[in-house]
Amino acid sequence: MTNRQRIAVLGATGSIGDSTLAILAAHSDNFDVYALSGHQRLDKLLQLCQQFNPARVCVPVDKVDDFAAKLAQAGLDSEVIGGPAGLDDIASDSQVDAVVAAIVGAAGLSSTLKAARAGKRILLANKEALVMAGQVMISLVKTHGATLLPIDSEHNAIFQCLPPSIQQDNTQIHKSSYGVRKLWLTASGGPFLQHSFAHMQQAGVAEAVKHPNWSMGQKISVDSATMMNKGLELIEACHLFDLPEDKINVVIHPQSIIHSMVEYNDGSYLAQLGSPDMKTPIAHALSYPERIDSGSQPLDLFALSALEFIAPDLQKFACLRLARQAMQAGTQATIVLNAANEIAVEAFLAERIRLTDIADINEQALSQVKVASLTADASIDDILAIDDAARRYTQTLIGQMAGQIAGQMV
Amino acid sequence: MTNRQRIAVLGATGSIGDSTLAILAAHSDNFDVYALSGHQRLDKLLQLCQQFNPARVCVPVDKVDDFAAKLAQAGLDSEVIGGPAGLDDIASDSQVDAVVAAIVGAAGLSSTLKAARAGKRILLANKEALVMAGQVMISLVKTHGATLLPIDSEHNAIFQCLPPSIQQDNTQIHKSSYGVRKLWLTASGGPFLQHSFAHMQQAGVAEAVKHPNWSMGQKISVDSATMMNKGLELIEACHLFDLPEDKINVVIHPQSIIHSMVEYNDGSYLAQLGSPDMKTPIAHALSYPERIDSGSQPLDLFALSALEFIAPDLQKFACLRLARQAMQAGTQATIVLNAANEIAVEAFLAERIRLTDIADINEQALSQVKVASLTADASIDDILAIDDAARRYTQTLIGQMAGQIAGQMV
Repeated sequence: MTNRQRIAVLGATGSIGDSTLAILAAHSDNFDVYALSGHQRLDKLLQLCQQFNPARVCVPVDKVDDFAAKLAQAGLDSEVIGGPAGLDDIASDSQVDAVVAAIVGAAGLSSTLKAARAGKRILLANKEALVMAGQVMISLVKTHGATLLPIDSEHNAIFQCLPPSIQQDNTQIHKSSYGVRKLWLTASGGPFLQHSFAHMQQAGVAEAVKHPNWSMGQKISVDSATMMNKGLELIEACHLFDLPEDKINVVIHPQSIIHSMVEYNDGSYLAQLGSPDMKTPIAHALSYPERIDSGSQPLDLFALSALEFIAPDLQKFACLRLARQAMQAGTQATIVLNAANEIAVEAFLAERIRLTDIADINEQALSQVKVASLTADASIDDILAIDDAARRYTQTLIGQMAGQIAGQMV
Repeated sequence: MTNRQRIAVLGATGSIGDSTLAILAAHSDNFDVYALSGHQRLDKLLQLCQQFNPARVCVPVDKVDDFAAKLAQAGLDSEVIGGPAGLDDIASDSQVDAVVAAIVGAAGLSSTLKAARAGKRILLANKEALVMAGQVMISLVKTHGATLLPIDSEHNAIFQCLPPSIQQDNTQIHKSSYGVRKLWLTASGGPFLQHSFAHMQQAGVAEAVKHPNWSMGQKISVDSATMMNKGLELIEACHLFDLPEDKINVVIHPQSIIHSMVEYNDGSYLAQLGSPDMKTPIAHALSYPERIDSGSQPLDLFALSALEFIAPDLQKFACLRLARQAMQAGTQATIVLNAANEIAVEAFLAERIRLTDIADINEQALSQVKVASLTADASIDDILAIDDAARRYTQTLIGQMAGQIAGQMV
């Protein structure tokens, strides 16, 4: 690598943070950990500060003094700042070259948009930046010359399989000379791939969060069980690669070895394969357009199970159909879908509704929450207003349903 | 495509010729069929002349007058030239932009080297240019600014999975910033993958030439049965991608859907997949760096069998081991191996030896034919002298063996 990069890791204590910091530690000649943020696991954040000695660190507003005291005790002089304003400040800090946007949920939205506005190199793990604000985000990236590098395994795989000109300007994907015909998002199919809809209806939380290949948080594990996760990734892919939803196919590939593919008009399919280890896409994005050792285990091709491809059952995985429908309708609809789904998943994890109710609730929210279309110059407040309306509608709906459903649950 | 290209198809009546001309016919706005050559199937060549009306056509020397008369009869005015000198002349014709080097065997060597010396864009199907003259060929390509585009499916797949800088200059593959760790050549494993060595020993010609996935000529089908074909491809890959043999792995992938892969140091494996249809790599090479519709069937992912990966058994497929050994020894050894193998395969097809004798004969030739090392400025005569010595040695060896073996054959 030519120039040493200063990195801000927003969401440093989660699993993306772990993988990112493992790579940064192994390549300290190339990268400087300039800033970290954490929300819940502040003990872990403190350890990370001791290891990386960042110039700045962001914690919740009400934890600033306490955390600063602990840092001082440890003999560290990192500047401690607090809350959403602190995140925004780091994301647009002139000292920062690259922002790892790994905060989960709407809480990561504002700082990710700030990083785009500041023209940073953005390693994007936060889904909401594209699902809730796709047009706004892409427009800011283009206007301010930011570089957007996806680090979830599917989008990173597609990115790797595109020619450099498209990687550097997604609108180039429409040039016929590049011959891109379709994208293929692979999906594991989650824990219910081999089970019936009836079985899924009765599934409890423990079964739903048991993902076959990746170790992930509870929310995303449930999304994987309903395939809403793949629906959200489909929406992200539309924005990242400037394609309508009907140019993006979803294929279930239970072994999760092929991470996604690009189909070209000469009959070539370019695919990226690898072990299910987030260090690979993160290392790719950190060093792009060069490559560095990620520390991930090389794939043992000879030890692999046979690779299968299965068409998704859109009856069983209705969330995937809803994602396409929302993407066609516009960003206001994808905001509603995402918000409704978050509330529904929470209710499932709290054992208030069944797993299969999630899709029904999402569908009702999509059809019932009435909101105006959003444009590329929408503000965060416009976006959050729609998000809020959808959450309130969904909470009410679940309140009404929960009573009826409770009787039917095992 | 920006500029209309004038194409010479050398070896127009074989299967590569068929696929190439199908694409050229479908894209007549972009390509002009400037010259064709044929050797045995001259009736077919005449039909192709009627279809494409090339400016020049090359046939065997003793067929020039007859062919010219038939063309005149058909009202065509293509110039008819003859023999190896005619092929050389077309390959270096200033009117030609791209040469499709699809003549099988040593007969294609001279014209391919001429195309390199003339700085042409070369679509390489002829194996001998690299197996017999790898260093010479690559040196000519570099010195004269030719562009070498592999069109067999494996090398084309690897080419597609490399970044443009390496595609345009193979020595760049050693730059650590590109992170290329290994190449993975896939092999079908041929018709004996699931059979024992003992079964292979007894196999007749009909069984040996029945390739599971590709429809090919008899010589290459036998090479596929012994995996000598993959050995020759390994040697080609070493020259094409400027790597020692130990950086290139061979993996048996019986479904022939993944056509080969590049392994990067971040844990990414980039692969090219597709239907087993030569139109895909040929279209890629014709239009590179753009892409055009090849007319090949899109892959039906959902109809595929599960994709498997198996380590090759180097006892059963000893030819693969011999190829590595020859590559390590130098070009003189790969010439000997290729020549011995051609003679041995002929003898097998003539039912004079057993299939498994091919590897033994090749091994003996490699150890017994004594030749000096070749350099990058070796002449075709130097190369053909080694080829000739190896053929004579092998003929004699088979003569001695055939008597003994005949008694043992079924």
